[in-house]
Amino acid sequence: MAVKQVRVALVGAGNIGRAFLQLMLDKAELLRQRHGFEMTLVGLADRSGAALDPAGLRPADILSLKAAGRGAAALPAHGQPGMPPDELVRRCGADLLLEASPTNIVDGQPGLRTIETALGLKMHVVSANKGPLVLAYPHLMALARQQGVALKHSAAVAGSCPTVNIGQRDLLGCQVARLEGIFNMTTNTILCRMAEKGLSFDVALAQAQAEGIAEADPTLDIDGWDAANKLVILANSVLGLPVTLADVEVEGIRGVRIEALQRAQAEGSAIKLLATAAQAGDGYKLAVRPTTIPLTHPLARLTADQMGIIYYTDVQGTIAAVAGQQGVLTTAGAMLRDVVAICG
Amino acid sequence: MAVKQVRVALVGAGNIGRAFLQLMLDKAELLRQRHGFEMTLVGLADRSGAALDPAGLRPADILSLKAAGRGAAALPAHGQPGMPPDELVRRCGADLLLEASPTNIVDGQPGLRTIETALGLKMHVVSANKGPLVLAYPHLMALARQQGVALKHSAAVAGSCPTVNIGQRDLLGCQVARLEGIFNMTTNTILCRMAEKGLSFDVALAQAQAEGIAEADPTLDIDGWDAANKLVILANSVLGLPVTLADVEVEGIRGVRIEALQRAQAEGSAIKLLATAAQAGDGYKLAVRPTTIPLTHPLARLTADQMGIIYYTDVQGTIAAVAGQQGVLTTAGAMLRDVVAICG
Repeated sequence: MAVKQVRVALVGAGNIGRAFLQLMLDKAELLRQRHGFEMTLVGLADRSGAALDPAGLRPADILSLKAAGRGAAALPAHGQPGMPPDELVRRCGADLLLEASPTNIVDGQPGLRTIETALGLKMHVVSANKGPLVLAYPHLMALARQQGVALKHSAAVAGSCPTVNIGQRDLLGCQVARLEGIFNMTTNTILCRMAEKGLSFDVALAQAQAEGIAEADPTLDIDGWDAANKLVILANSVLGLPVTLADVEVEGIRGVRIEALQRAQAEGSAIKLLATAAQAGDGYKLAVRPTTIPLTHPLARLTADQMGIIYYTDVQGTIAAVAGQQGVLTTAGAMLRDVVAICG
Repeated sequence: MAVKQVRVALVGAGNIGRAFLQLMLDKAELLRQRHGFEMTLVGLADRSGAALDPAGLRPADILSLKAAGRGAAALPAHGQPGMPPDELVRRCGADLLLEASPTNIVDGQPGLRTIETALGLKMHVVSANKGPLVLAYPHLMALARQQGVALKHSAAVAGSCPTVNIGQRDLLGCQVARLEGIFNMTTNTILCRMAEKGLSFDVALAQAQAEGIAEADPTLDIDGWDAANKLVILANSVLGLPVTLADVEVEGIRGVRIEALQRAQAEGSAIKLLATAAQAGDGYKLAVRPTTIPLTHPLARLTADQMGIIYYTDVQGTIAAVAGQQGVLTTAGAMLRDVVAICG
């Protein structure tokens, strides 16, 4: 069988982008042998600018450069200081764009423009970046359909947990009465530690920040916006609802007290930051808020490194999925599964 | 958009077949509106023989007939006493065969012949019947590929739990180091009740039989063969191993004592009938046996109406799925999802 050549461009070379570059090296043989294709990295963009080579950049060179604290623009012979990602996309001739740049939920940029440019050029897109999806899901999907290419985003909703895939591919023929998910690792870690170790919110947050689990500005996580982003993407992609963040009632975990967590435990339940879509009338009500659930609930015992979802359906009963050992690698692994689904 | 007409034949009108007929009624509008197709039942076979009508049998008529304790052969104008299912398949002109007849693990018949006949005629096949898959998976899949049709079987491995689908479609790019599953409801129910209520194996079995959860001859379930069947199908379909039952070490639950269950509970663990495929050298070791797992294991707390699986992977971490409220309806629901995946 002839091995198919797939030219890819990667935008974003932070933790997830670099993990993906490493997977390109580690998985090259498996992709060739089991799935019949090879990826060539024809372009890369990061904050410094971009690097391009139609003959293929070497992922190992990029990883060395990043390890030395330098950016793509510094790559000898191929670096392009200050080149924006959409220009990279226009010039690199890729078949598939990997979008792994940071989520911007204000206007989705520069990711939104990058993805629009790629779809406009009939490139497939695999996005771990939530911003463009949260802000413009129906528009981007319509564009992808019109251009005859795929836009996949299974890494954007809870790492490798197949939240979107189960909803889109396994619940065929079902009505979803309700879905509930724990989609944010930072808040889940903080709530777990508050409950297990009796730490106050402030101490648990400071600890998580010291360990690099929570960001210096933890607002997006702590106040529920990251979970709400993921809920919006699920509502669009699985429930077919053209909703945005404005349609979600959002409450974060700043107000959760140790006493409440301990009382819940004593009563055989747990408090989790639950994202919920519940059928109401002709539509669904969307919310993210700290919620008391019984310990018999499939998501009640999730540990700090797990994320999960449960669908309540009419003819398939309940379907829950829990992914463990979640982190940068598993998010890159989810991007890889999207690439294989498109190219394999 | 034009509504596509799909002509289906159903073999087997036991609990699952009848639940599927009911879904044909209940879901007709959803299938038409959301997925753009309509099913017409052009043939049905059961123990009495068959019924055929190229213009379409009415599922409601069949359900009434079965409710009155009669078979397909008794259907006025369309009944064919004694017609075997493979002859029905040859004569009915269906596009898709639904195989829901009882599992025969000795020689897979008559299901194996029925499925071979259908594939030979370029019909898609959706099978909830495990026998043919356990005995002849590589042969049937090769035949389906050669004929350019689909053979789907997500209902054959743990009801609506997406065991096969996650393995085939979400773990793309992964190496599976190990999978573990609880695939048999009868044994899970008996072990749950022994642990919770302190019942002996014999009493718990008799109770399950009285309730219709366990069969009069419970050997296939109790001695682990049903779970082993499902493990063989997963090993073939997900791990790509051309194995059969002879490759699985099988031990049932007859030897599990209340004392052992209670000791496990006291030590923070549970005993479950676990089906396992574990990487060993170049291949996998397959086993079904009562296994002590810690309560932190994602499958340790499964209740009587749940089934589940966990995959241990290299780049997606662990992925567990648990399906609840399992029974006849959810198995029919899983057949429906396969139909939609093929026709939608």
